[in-house]
Amino acid sequence: MARHAGGSGGGLFFLFLVTTLLFVAVAEVGAEGVEADEKAHLLPRPLVIELPTSAAEEVPAEVRCASWRLAGEANNLAPWKAVPEECAGYVRDYLTGLAYRSDLEVVAREASAYARATRVGDDGRDAWVFDVDETLLSNLPYYADHGYGLELFDHREFDKWVERGEAPAIPSSLKLYKEVRELGFKTFLLTGRSEGHQGVTVENLKKQGFHDWDKLILRAPADRKKTATIYKSEKRKEMEEEGYRILGNSGDQWSDLLGFSTSARSFKLPNPMYYIP
Amino acid sequence: MARHAGGSGGGLFFLFLVTTLLFVAVAEVGAEGVEADEKAHLLPRPLVIELPTSAAEEVPAEVRCASWRLAGEANNLAPWKAVPEECAGYVRDYLTGLAYRSDLEVVAREASAYARATRVGDDGRDAWVFDVDETLLSNLPYYADHGYGLELFDHREFDKWVERGEAPAIPSSLKLYKEVRELGFKTFLLTGRSEGHQGVTVENLKKQGFHDWDKLILRAPADRKKTATIYKSEKRKEMEEEGYRILGNSGDQWSDLLGFSTSARSFKLPNPMYYIP
Repeated sequence: MARHAGGSGGGLFFLFLVTTLLFVAVAEVGAEGVEADEKAHLLPRPLVIELPTSAAEEVPAEVRCASWRLAGEANNLAPWKAVPEECAGYVRDYLTGLAYRSDLEVVAREASAYARATRVGDDGRDAWVFDVDETLLSNLPYYADHGYGLELFDHREFDKWVERGEAPAIPSSLKLYKEVRELGFKTFLLTGRSEGHQGVTVENLKKQGFHDWDKLILRAPADRKKTATIYKSEKRKEMEEEGYRILGNSGDQWSDLLGFSTSARSFKLPNPMYYIP
Repeated sequence: MARHAGGSGGGLFFLFLVTTLLFVAVAEVGAEGVEADEKAHLLPRPLVIELPTSAAEEVPAEVRCASWRLAGEANNLAPWKAVPEECAGYVRDYLTGLAYRSDLEVVAREASAYARATRVGDDGRDAWVFDVDETLLSNLPYYADHGYGLELFDHREFDKWVERGEAPAIPSSLKLYKEVRELGFKTFLLTGRSEGHQGVTVENLKKQGFHDWDKLILRAPADRKKTATIYKSEKRKEMEEEGYRILGNSGDQWSDLLGFSTSARSFKLPNPMYYIP
């Protein structure tokens, strides 16, 4: 902690600026007078109240869980296997409330602005890559039945859900998808789903309004043991080798976006339910 | 929007699962009976309420601003010049409340866990790169006087603040800094501040408890016109060429972390006040 050289009474300070007291601070400075000429240009300084350093236990769980979610979205978390138990309610409320939808819409809006500002070439080689699960299609109905990420991932159960072909579209993603197609981008759907799920995935996508993609790439048996980062990077590299310029990439996992042959711009959709390396 | 094939009455649905009504939905399913055998294994499905698609005006400003902040932290925003006007109060409240501090602490905790799990070599070549402003030192007292990012950045005013050498340490970053030094990492401070500010920066850092860094790299006149991404990438490349392995990198801007010669792991500290390309 540092002493606040410009404050009154040597008050220790850091982050907890009490802005409602701004004018009290101003009044104090005024009463004391400004001693040095070089300080005369200074604007009023806020009064700051110190809180103890190790206040973790004083931070409400909701704030801690918001920090956990933010850390995940900024790719700061080490690989994680499940939502922390104390955050189960927080994550459920987030996903079922306004915030998740708003977050999805803001990302789509930014992607749309970028797509519209991009001059698509006449050669049909500008491409946009979309992930499928939690990007174009939502598995929220499945996760609602499985603790919204609190339960460890169960491949068998999830496969049953996938095979029903009932995952709804994420509306803001459907809108973006249609828009980038209309702008002339080639659209490549690059999913971690296995080739065995090709039929049901095509059917599910079409039923939800996704049409006319240029390629749907599913995970072949040879790709099964690769991380998503490697598998997806290799597939993007193949696109580049075929002459495509990948200008946009939308995905809910950092493994959709990072690695090599990365897109000119990437858009990370929110997902606090699971992590795929 | 998709029809919910498994729902009752063809209710349109997407994100707004009303979990408090879960058991109402279960009761309905029970009353109708499960028609097909293959549906018998299904768990109760939540009842979902549709909201209009273009509900932007119904989303409170606070939710929209939270989405804007999240989008910035996940590197989804195009370069932005100032905090959106409607988010001025939101950003101020965030920075002066518990959330910012909690976010900083969670990132530092993750970085610390990673540092401790890393086997530091005996050759003194494992390095951690730290940015300075909003990473080791906080300029919050300055930004408190300038709308917390609402005002356009004013180099002259900001330089005056820097030259006072009074920026306080970010406590969670000071703790991390000390820890990675004790673990044996070389610590390189890589800042966008100009070489003219070397003296005051050294003094400010020491006064705040940062000692014994291995190198403090400031922006030379030749680097002035480069983006931060390029300038910092070039400096990391030089470190690599000198034989250092960059294992950790902490910064509040994506331009601290992306580009080339990137770190094995990067940690993005929160900063909703400004964007440096």
